[in-house]
Amino acid sequence: MSTRNTDESRKHILIIGAGFGGLAAAKALSKRNVHVTLVDRNNYHTFQPLLYQVATGGLEPDSIAYPVRRVFRRRRNVSFRMAELQAVIPSQHKIRTSIRDMTYDYLVIATGSLPNFYSFEPVAGKLMPLKTVTDALNMRSLIMQNLESATLAEDAEEQEALINVVIVGAGPTGVELAGALAEMRRHVLPKDFPELDMTRMHIYLFEGAGRVLPAMSKTASRKAERYLKRLGVILKVNSQATGYDGATLTLADGTEVNSETVIWTAGVQADTVAGLSDVMKQGMRLPVDATLRVKGYENIYAIGDIALASEESFPDGHPMLSPVAIQQGRHAARNIWNQIRGRELHPFRYRDKGVMATIGRNRAVADLSFGKFGGTLAWFIWMFIHIWSLIGFRNKLVTFIGWAYNYFTYDRALGLIIRPYRRS
Amino acid sequence: MSTRNTDESRKHILIIGAGFGGLAAAKALSKRNVHVTLVDRNNYHTFQPLLYQVATGGLEPDSIAYPVRRVFRRRRNVSFRMAELQAVIPSQHKIRTSIRDMTYDYLVIATGSLPNFYSFEPVAGKLMPLKTVTDALNMRSLIMQNLESATLAEDAEEQEALINVVIVGAGPTGVELAGALAEMRRHVLPKDFPELDMTRMHIYLFEGAGRVLPAMSKTASRKAERYLKRLGVILKVNSQATGYDGATLTLADGTEVNSETVIWTAGVQADTVAGLSDVMKQGMRLPVDATLRVKGYENIYAIGDIALASEESFPDGHPMLSPVAIQQGRHAARNIWNQIRGRELHPFRYRDKGVMATIGRNRAVADLSFGKFGGTLAWFIWMFIHIWSLIGFRNKLVTFIGWAYNYFTYDRALGLIIRPYRRS
Repeated sequence: MSTRNTDESRKHILIIGAGFGGLAAAKALSKRNVHVTLVDRNNYHTFQPLLYQVATGGLEPDSIAYPVRRVFRRRRNVSFRMAELQAVIPSQHKIRTSIRDMTYDYLVIATGSLPNFYSFEPVAGKLMPLKTVTDALNMRSLIMQNLESATLAEDAEEQEALINVVIVGAGPTGVELAGALAEMRRHVLPKDFPELDMTRMHIYLFEGAGRVLPAMSKTASRKAERYLKRLGVILKVNSQATGYDGATLTLADGTEVNSETVIWTAGVQADTVAGLSDVMKQGMRLPVDATLRVKGYENIYAIGDIALASEESFPDGHPMLSPVAIQQGRHAARNIWNQIRGRELHPFRYRDKGVMATIGRNRAVADLSFGKFGGTLAWFIWMFIHIWSLIGFRNKLVTFIGWAYNYFTYDRALGLIIRPYRRS
Repeated sequence: MSTRNTDESRKHILIIGAGFGGLAAAKALSKRNVHVTLVDRNNYHTFQPLLYQVATGGLEPDSIAYPVRRVFRRRRNVSFRMAELQAVIPSQHKIRTSIRDMTYDYLVIATGSLPNFYSFEPVAGKLMPLKTVTDALNMRSLIMQNLESATLAEDAEEQEALINVVIVGAGPTGVELAGALAEMRRHVLPKDFPELDMTRMHIYLFEGAGRVLPAMSKTASRKAERYLKRLGVILKVNSQATGYDGATLTLADGTEVNSETVIWTAGVQADTVAGLSDVMKQGMRLPVDATLRVKGYENIYAIGDIALASEESFPDGHPMLSPVAIQQGRHAARNIWNQIRGRELHPFRYRDKGVMATIGRNRAVADLSFGKFGGTLAWFIWMFIHIWSLIGFRNKLVTFIGWAYNYFTYDRALGLIIRPYRRS
């Protein structure tokens, strides 16, 4: 069945998850004399930092998702399997998946994270998360559907509930979404919905911590707050959401907001891996040692959002960010190769190159190793880094054109409801 | 609620369907002192001639679909409503829709056509039609899912059933799909699925008539057959499909073909309009007089695929093609305005500018008013006409880049299974 030339002595490395971490590990290992199998439930890699652009109609999904098989076209020692992990069976060196069992010599767990709804878990079906391409398309559909419904609304209150958008959680995703929605409200929606009074659309951004972008510097937070306010986003920090019934969101201070659209970007949690319950607690990250091996296992590595690696400067684990996942992916690959060759394993050290977030059409904030700054320059840097990081020449080009188009026309091109979203 | 300035004396024209016909009628009427409401179940217009490109990963859906509201941004006398027609109630000059009733002074029915499964109606859920963006995305997902499954197949027969594709109906859609799939098989799939032997993938094209493209000239058919054979498509004319059980397709001559993917492009039928049963028979087109008014009604027009207009050179009605719909849309708009102004109505005359079909990456056939020809020149003309016809600068540009990319790299960029297709 297989046309691959197999070298019996080659070790087989199984990588679960084709996110930033898994992809980096597979690329690094593809240069070694090993056989790699990469498993993902989707046949594509998702460039998660730009999901908010798909959700707000700035980019089409095909620009930020890339088929995994295409990444490894010229790396014949890498196979891909579209399958969902069901359990790891460490005693037999194999995993159980939705399609069949697969054995490994070394396992890399890179399954990432899920939205964390905390106490909102019972109403999670009424909230819109933003972790997958499907989430982004659902959000795009819901926003457009609600605008269409608003044109038919009988009274002002009903209409406002349809067009208001609430975002819970002001991390980078929440802030970027709020900015993009505010730009849409100003430049796009009045043209497409002349029958609606868009000054009545409110965009709320609620954050439990004392400032937006709590993981960034205070300078960045202050600048981001200024940009958001200038865009007309109603920002509330130190505000805890306490309930949502599908129509009204309640805050701890008693405030009530009517909105059919509540976007949940308040947190993520590790995606539990069955079979490792001896080391992994429900919803918690998988503890790994300094070499990125899961504690207690010789040949199982974990990287990215799922992994809890402690390092002196990160006693509570690394932030759940793509640069961490990419560096850990490369590091795990290096250590696996060292282990195969009987060499010493090295501890992982995160090289923090900084964090950025964009707010609206030409503002961004950046905490970079060489300085903290904001404004239009930061936005240009943000844009070029993101275009540069997309996989594939076509995606880079199409994204660049899309953004240039949006930038010069003050428009967003895409507002299709291809699959109407039906709330669960 | 409405910011529109209303002139009570203005007539209200209701157009149902934002396909080629409805859009053309609305554009023409937007220049008159009337109020137009355009209704469609989707919030976008679909450029149907390029659906096969979406189905085979050559274009993203956002390039061939365009939000209706954007088309009419600068035409303030045109409103849009996303709604599904439920019935026409001519006696009350109103229609019933999924959202609410709407009244009209003049009604234009432009609801188009549906796939016609003929005797295959009972197994329609197992067949893949290609009339909507959703159909195209389902087809793209199914083909990619079956290829993924084929990498796991236990035996050669099972594997072939997964990768074989059968197309029933060799009109333009069937021929264009067969060509695009054959190019994929040759240039794309061997790179993405090195573990599969793509020479074992068969692409069948079955046609009940005696030649492919039966609506075109014999010259075009002969050329198209030659191009298809050169691409390795297994072509059978005069062959009637008689049954499909989800795994095996049977032909009238007893031939059996195993395939999980049966694409149905064998015919279309008018989409029945409730409330007009006095003139419309189930599955038949709506008879209109020479002025395009539905027979027996003073103020109801029908255009495009749904309308059966008889003209001397088209005694059985016009072909179900976009140029007919566009010309009828403009003509109906002109006649409605004449009717409002108390002027004489004019009979519709179809100006046939010709038909084209493309086969593979650089071959097409064209029956144009000034000549019948084929080959690469026809393909270039086909390509420029199609890019020119797309709505919106962004779509034209992105489509051009996509095609240039595919042309020079022999590749197709998109193979994402964003929503897995589950057979009903």
